[in-house]
Amino acid sequence: MSALEIAMRAAIAAGEGARGRTSPNPPVGCVVLDPTGAVAGVGATQPPGGPHAEVMALRAAGELARGGTAVVTLEPCAHHGRTPPCVLALLDAGISEVHFAVADPFPAAAGGADQLRAAGVTVHSGLLADAVRKGPLRAWLHHVRTGRPHVTWKFASTVDGRSAAADGTSRWISSPESRAEVHALRRKIDAVIVGTATVVTDNPQLTARTPEGGLAERQPLRVVVGESDIPEGSRVLDDAAETLHLRTRDPREVLAVLAGRGVVDVLLEGGPRLAGAFWESGVVDRVLMYVAPLLLGAGTAALGELGVSTMSAALPLSYESVTMSGPDVRISAVPAQD
Amino acid sequence: MSALEIAMRAAIAAGEGARGRTSPNPPVGCVVLDPTGAVAGVGATQPPGGPHAEVMALRAAGELARGGTAVVTLEPCAHHGRTPPCVLALLDAGISEVHFAVADPFPAAAGGADQLRAAGVTVHSGLLADAVRKGPLRAWLHHVRTGRPHVTWKFASTVDGRSAAADGTSRWISSPESRAEVHALRRKIDAVIVGTATVVTDNPQLTARTPEGGLAERQPLRVVVGESDIPEGSRVLDDAAETLHLRTRDPREVLAVLAGRGVVDVLLEGGPRLAGAFWESGVVDRVLMYVAPLLLGAGTAALGELGVSTMSAALPLSYESVTMSGPDVRISAVPAQD
Repeated sequence: MSALEIAMRAAIAAGEGARGRTSPNPPVGCVVLDPTGAVAGVGATQPPGGPHAEVMALRAAGELARGGTAVVTLEPCAHHGRTPPCVLALLDAGISEVHFAVADPFPAAAGGADQLRAAGVTVHSGLLADAVRKGPLRAWLHHVRTGRPHVTWKFASTVDGRSAAADGTSRWISSPESRAEVHALRRKIDAVIVGTATVVTDNPQLTARTPEGGLAERQPLRVVVGESDIPEGSRVLDDAAETLHLRTRDPREVLAVLAGRGVVDVLLEGGPRLAGAFWESGVVDRVLMYVAPLLLGAGTAALGELGVSTMSAALPLSYESVTMSGPDVRISAVPAQD
Repeated sequence: MSALEIAMRAAIAAGEGARGRTSPNPPVGCVVLDPTGAVAGVGATQPPGGPHAEVMALRAAGELARGGTAVVTLEPCAHHGRTPPCVLALLDAGISEVHFAVADPFPAAAGGADQLRAAGVTVHSGLLADAVRKGPLRAWLHHVRTGRPHVTWKFASTVDGRSAAADGTSRWISSPESRAEVHALRRKIDAVIVGTATVVTDNPQLTARTPEGGLAERQPLRVVVGESDIPEGSRVLDDAAETLHLRTRDPREVLAVLAGRGVVDVLLEGGPRLAGAFWESGVVDRVLMYVAPLLLGAGTAALGELGVSTMSAALPLSYESVTMSGPDVRISAVPAQD
């Protein structure tokens, strides 16, 4: 791995660490190298209204940035938004070379590379672009492209495909390791969606918890979808996090409302009917499945009716990764390209 | 890896290659090294009545065996069965050292190591014993221990746990790669079991086919379980292989009949009701699952009622391996130890 690749890996890690706090802005990471190539500063996008990644990294680098290199996951922005453009900050700091992974797809912000070049800065793009696209900027790029939040449908099932037993019990299918992972994931996303049926049946709190069991500092918006009322005393109504009740079953309507609130990255957690409706609407972007080493022989599947009645009409997926999460198998998949 | 380990790996491969042709005898592999440690002969158990692995390897080695070493997956037998004991063959050939992986658990055949030692041969045991126990001798060791054939329950399902669509169609859930693998597996086992419902619904031929699509030289016994008649003209009634119809739904009765016919290694292929009965009877020894990258949202699960109604009573499994088979995920699991 070259020194630049190592710097970009660090920038990706910094961006990943900022997930869940930046929407609707992208969780960008930046590493500033001094003129000798040593790391002088690392930064990530701050919550909306706060400095962007480049500014944070430049601040950390101070005078060491002069004549140095900035390595950043996204093309530096060229527009005056709530903060001054990063291009100006890079020029002010005397950066002489910029490497970014992914070009800015957002028309109002694009043009940063050209402005830097016009000012005499050497600019390269594309370094580890795929790792950035599938990593910290995945949801944001999807959101810019489609106008919709990125939706990850998460579920746990037994080997024989059951997500709840015959008597309706579903705790705990997956292992403590997998549950801890889901809590870590909730800290990184903007909103978690369930149907009213899940609230009534399972009464989940839908919060992000730390490994020690306490509430995480940041909580996703809890979104309950469906026309039924949320029963009084339901845990989603506690004050651990904000809760939004959308009295519709139309996934596109749900996502439009959420996009309007700056939600970019969503975790769809159930149940089967709601998941079926999301798939039928074509708005699920990723499947995250935990297969627990259990057999039930009866009970409910994770996915309800989506209008497919014969094998040849099954919705094709493409596996992204198959790994272990404690004793469970973790499968990540995306809808197959046509 | 030491030279002896390499020889044992070759013996394991030879034994694996003999699977499906030796029952009720074990598919043993043997490698004979000459006095310099070079491979002089490789052999595997021949079909019942034919020579054992040691004799085959000694024949291949000829005079090179004198003063040499025999590396064998199972303790050489000491009894006169349909063939003379392998211990005598090893002594006659002048073998001076024997390494075997697994001790013979079969009372009538055991004692080989002691007889060899008494005759002045150096004997070591345990080399790669675990690889042999989980490999070519797995089913046979299970059969000796329990008196029952080893049962592998094989099924394919979608990501959402369906093995058939709402209209009953199930072809083809899994990929050509996975189907080829199942055909290769059928060549290695003694019998394949389905219920009458599967015969009526899917009309499978249940034969082992070569990668080119032709019938494999060896075919497993086709076993149809259930009280209904097999419809005339069903493909399982063709003359591609032998078929046995057992008019019972009791898995233990089925396995007793098969054990009486020398069946040691069985593939249980469905459907849900029969699989549920086998699990409920506690006679399934391994799960082999192919998860295809598809979503159905409706249809039948692979496993039917096994008397579990709540999550805490789910049957625990332990994953042996999680690997890819073409685009499918292949999971091998065993019932968890209490």
